Amino acid sequence: MKKAHEFVVQKWLNTELPISLNSLSGKVVMISAFQMLCPGCVGVSLPQAKNVFDSFSSSDLAVLGLHTVFEHHGAMKEESLKAFLYENRIHFPVGIDMPAKKRTIPETMEKYRIEGTPSTVLIDRDGILRKLKFGHIPDLLLGAELMALINEKHDIE
Amino acid sequence: MKKAHEFVVQKWLNTELPISLNSLSGKVVMISAFQMLCPGCVGVSLPQAKNVFDSFSSSDLAVLGLHTVFEHHGAMKEESLKAFLYENRIHFPVGIDMPAKKRTIPETMEKYRIEGTPSTVLIDRDGILRKLKFGHIPDLLLGAELMALINEKHDIE
Amino acid sequence: MKKAHEFVVQKWLNTELPISLNSLSGKVVMISAFQMLCPGCVGVSLPQAKNVFDSFSSSDLAVLGLHTVFEHHGAMKEESLKAFLYENRIHFPVGIDMPAKKRTIPETMEKYRIEGTPSTVLIDRDGILRKLKFGHIPDLLLGAELMALINEKHDIE
Amino acid sequence: MKKAHEFVVQKWLNTELPISLNSLSGKVVMISAFQMLCPGCVGVSLPQAKNVFDSFSSSDLAVLGLHTVFEHHGAMKEESLKAFLYENRIHFPVGIDMPAKKRTIPETMEKYRIEGTPSTVLIDRDGILRKLKFGHIPDLLLGAELMALINEKHDIE
Repeated sequence: MKKAHEFVVQKWLNTELPISLNSLSGKVVMISAFQMLCPGCVGVSLPQAKNVFDSFSSSDLAVLGLHTVFEHHGAMKEESLKAFLYENRIHFPVGIDMPAKKRTIPETMEKYRIEGTPSTVLIDRDGILRKLKFGHIPDLLLGAELMALINEKHDIE
Repeated sequence: MKKAHEFVVQKWLNTELPISLNSLSGKVVMISAFQMLCPGCVGVSLPQAKNVFDSFSSSDLAVLGLHTVFEHHGAMKEESLKAFLYENRIHFPVGIDMPAKKRTIPETMEKYRIEGTPSTVLIDRDGILRKLKFGHIPDLLLGAELMALINEKHDIE
Repeated sequence: MKKAHEFVVQKWLNTELPISLNSLSGKVVMISAFQMLCPGCVGVSLPQAKNVFDSFSSSDLAVLGLHTVFEHHGAMKEESLKAFLYENRIHFPVGIDMPAKKRTIPETMEKYRIEGTPSTVLIDRDGILRKLKFGHIPDLLLGAELMALINEKHDIE
Repeated sequence: MKKAHEFVVQKWLNTELPISLNSLSGKVVMISAFQMLCPGCVGVSLPQAKNVFDSFSSSDLAVLGLHTVFEHHGAMKEESLKAFLYENRIHFPVGIDMPAKKRTIPETMEKYRIEGTPSTVLIDRDGILRKLKFGHIPDLLLGAELMALINEKHDIE
């Protein structure tokens, strides 16, 4: 198993310090890849990510958003995203995925081979990518998968 | 009873011809006042307006959206709104309310004394304002109120 | 158009006086045909009937339940039904459809040719059967249909 | 920590062999205590128990229903319960809690000090009572708690 790719983001919102996967080593990481104008993200995956953020201890689990804009680029710029996060009361850190030159798919999305939004990424305490799911994960299953990862020991290097 | 105020909109989307209240005389008119970043609009009032648009005959009822931006103005510009309408499959005409000089509340919103979003406005076949509701109208009640207005005769002038 | 069939019920609950279609002449009548062990009735059609009962004036509309048991007869007897109505806070009158000799389908259900549960029956102010629907009627549509019937004049005989 | 009380049931449905807590040693056990006429059980806790039954391996987790009738006793007898389980497609074993002489609360319910329905009981692989909750447990939390118990080692005696 290989380490998950480091994030390549243009800017982090809802956090004072930039976030790297490396700095989160030892915690389980859940990434909710979304676009602010994707109805399934607004209606289902972001409310679920908020619920996860509120339900688990931040010492065990880091919840992150990743704004992976691959369509309507001009419609989802930083100012719009900031208002969106405020209105939807999303308080966990959100990274704006790095636009790629001459391509519509941004860099982190491409590295992780994320197929669309919403997608959920789970990374274990050792930084290994353990799950990548395009679409919805039911709450019961997600709760079980997160707890299974949280219960794994971290191999301190 | 007085005639409802004429719309003052900057631009109409989802329609080739501009729309005026006067031109709709003879039909019942339902206006869904919204902001694209208002969670209650995205989750509840706009899906309801789509349902109304699909359920009633367009010869009896005109369904219109009114984008009444009174906060985060820079975040909800025309390009973002167009992508929002496309992604949320909103096919009825949407007017962009006219920004007012030095004020945050746009003109039509102010004339109608709309308190916030989502709001629903019902106008009868004679152009008289019959209902203005800030917040949610349950489907059962809205269906009954629309049919009561549709069943009224239009006094041809 | 013909008059709707008179109810043939074994017993009425939630009412001191027995109810006949004839005695309701002048009002619109909505009948919710159900079985207490039918999941679609418990989850959808009975909550909707309660909502209709609470939303319209009883001088315009009579809401009735009809317990049309056509399977598991021994499991849905009067004592069980009474507890069911109490626990589900159903306060409108409910008639227990008359069991038919040697047949599983009770009498009123058969006369109306109701295909299963849940079913909704709408009868106009003149006692004419206007709608019979097996399955779900969305709230928006039901509200509109009820108001259309309420707005019709009653031909006093 | 003490062993959970053994079940005292009048009869088991949906299983050929009677079930004892002792015979389930080594598995996590989830018990959904319900009454067939309790709306919160029909609408929320039993659908959740079905989802748990379908989502976890039966070699890790045993899902059981316990019909703890403490009101309307005559309305929820075995024949009614059997039809209820059939109509609601509940396929996991359901025990009918033993009526107690001269008391309304049945025996297992009393031993476990279950306060009402719906209630959920979680027992670990060693037969220790780990959770007793009257009311709803959200899916995300229940999934996490079940997985935490499943991941614990069983101390073979």
